[in-house]
Amino acid sequence: MEKRRRKSYRPMAELALLIVAGLAGTALGSSVDDALLTQARQVFAPLPEVMSSAKNPVTPEKVKLGKMLLYETRISIDGQVSCVKCHPMSLYLADGLKKAIGNNCKVNPRNSPTLFNAASQISAHWIGNRADVEDQARQAVTGPPAFGMPSNQAVELRLKQLGYGPLFRQAFPGDKEPVTVENFARAVGAFERTLVTPAPFDAYLKGNQGAINQTAKMGLKTFMDAGCAACHASPYLGGQMYQKFGIVAPYWQYTKSADKDDGRYVVTKNETDRYVFKVPILRNVAKTAPYFHDGSIDSLGEAVWIMGKVQLGKGLSKAQVKEINAFLDALTGEIPRDILTAPLLP
Amino acid sequence: MEKRRRKSYRPMAELALLIVAGLAGTALGSSVDDALLTQARQVFAPLPEVMSSAKNPVTPEKVKLGKMLLYETRISIDGQVSCVKCHPMSLYLADGLKKAIGNNCKVNPRNSPTLFNAASQISAHWIGNRADVEDQARQAVTGPPAFGMPSNQAVELRLKQLGYGPLFRQAFPGDKEPVTVENFARAVGAFERTLVTPAPFDAYLKGNQGAINQTAKMGLKTFMDAGCAACHASPYLGGQMYQKFGIVAPYWQYTKSADKDDGRYVVTKNETDRYVFKVPILRNVAKTAPYFHDGSIDSLGEAVWIMGKVQLGKGLSKAQVKEINAFLDALTGEIPRDILTAPLLP
Repeated sequence: MEKRRRKSYRPMAELALLIVAGLAGTALGSSVDDALLTQARQVFAPLPEVMSSAKNPVTPEKVKLGKMLLYETRISIDGQVSCVKCHPMSLYLADGLKKAIGNNCKVNPRNSPTLFNAASQISAHWIGNRADVEDQARQAVTGPPAFGMPSNQAVELRLKQLGYGPLFRQAFPGDKEPVTVENFARAVGAFERTLVTPAPFDAYLKGNQGAINQTAKMGLKTFMDAGCAACHASPYLGGQMYQKFGIVAPYWQYTKSADKDDGRYVVTKNETDRYVFKVPILRNVAKTAPYFHDGSIDSLGEAVWIMGKVQLGKGLSKAQVKEINAFLDALTGEIPRDILTAPLLP
Repeated sequence: MEKRRRKSYRPMAELALLIVAGLAGTALGSSVDDALLTQARQVFAPLPEVMSSAKNPVTPEKVKLGKMLLYETRISIDGQVSCVKCHPMSLYLADGLKKAIGNNCKVNPRNSPTLFNAASQISAHWIGNRADVEDQARQAVTGPPAFGMPSNQAVELRLKQLGYGPLFRQAFPGDKEPVTVENFARAVGAFERTLVTPAPFDAYLKGNQGAINQTAKMGLKTFMDAGCAACHASPYLGGQMYQKFGIVAPYWQYTKSADKDDGRYVVTKNETDRYVFKVPILRNVAKTAPYFHDGSIDSLGEAVWIMGKVQLGKGLSKAQVKEINAFLDALTGEIPRDILTAPLLP
């Protein structure tokens, strides 16, 4: 089985071409290059400018307010938790921890995913218990290991005391009483929908074949041919389906997981959902260690190798892992300066 | 005593002039205005461009590295504490908490002061146990309720693992082994020395008498004549001396302090230093509630009134408090966008 798969994803003729191109230190022959781009375009697409939502249209007023609220610690029970607590800008909106830490040092069940390019997934977080980024923001304020506030009313009162009233009125002009947790969620969600980080891979997909290097192209080829792209597809390279972590072998046999996580089973209680997680997006993955739902692996190369092993039954070679890493590096995006600029709070 | 002081700081003739000006809704008569500016210039001065240090010259390379290190959580024992944990940009580099919270939710003994305009004080923090901003950064990494790292060596190893080597080499080109906690402190300190936020009051001191409004000018006059400026002087309106908190009456009779803090006595064990604290700077004070060493007071007006009571033996009127507040508002500075922009970490 493994042998067949290997053979199918890197035919010998093509491998020879790659080697020749590699030895010569030149670009791949243009027909091979063009074929790779054509193949890539069938699976991926460049990022949109905004991850829009019919339910929550993105407006400048909502985005401005949402950005402020993302940094607002004073609406958490211990005054220390804001969205950026677990999603700090400097670490590409992830936090570098194995599992997120919320109010009063409470450990969250899973690793903080980045907020960049995250708003067009089938759900937020790992197990499908947050419908979308707005639902995530909505649930966070009273979530016991998140902001931990006693009620929505307490949050709304605090927002008014802090002087957010006029900003909510501007962002939600039709509302009689705009300062609500519902609107907090809409504003935060609207800002998140602008968090798009175009990367060299987008330039490549748009036709600039020099935007990613030769090693990255070989990694892209392997990534598609090995089967990674079966799940990690779309402009986001993931986020579009749930999948069992450990199709071929239990994940904890390869990760350094401290415990087994039942995954989506926690939500559905369906036996078929045990160890099932949302397929994470891979945008900026080189910048958002540690990896997996429990942050059990620090090295991207090791994470790639484990994925080959437990999802595809493949023992990726060191060279293949290196190439895939180079491809994943090409997913590290440019962060617009507007996004990097901290808002000043009332 | 109180009567005499009152009389001396607002002579009746001048008060009449102020009232006339107020009723007419016009600016103060120019001779009064000019006299006020002359008086203010004897006590205060505009902010410098950089708070320079002979011991730690500010260079672009140090500033660039220092800014990154300010945001670096991965060199703390729980991976959650960086300088901006207690000094977040969005809250004017203070944290809105009564007392700072460090690693593993450990409560620090005192309130987080802002880092803006903070690097030219006689010492950092409240009680003179941090010589300067560099010393504060140096002590923070192994400080038990701060970063809580077991040793400088552990911090240095982590910095190397994270890939900071080349950045330290650029910032400290003469050093054989540049990745040290000493240089961490120099880099962070160099960045802090650039954190200057010019305010309307600076424009006023430079001669633009329209930069602050009439109420603020009345507050400035009261601030100087009442005696506040005896301690809160210099470009920073404080930070140049230690002073007993509660000269006229024990502070805890007026604040909502949960306990008595011995202040500088903790450092010197001199009885005369009991309840003595560094006079805090007042730059951006309107943005950095709560107030005092223990964050016991939320309202700036209440803090001003208490200071009048316990330091000067004066019961400031509501109007005087309002005017002083307007003056303190004029100390809220513009934060350059470069400073607000988050760095991306290795």
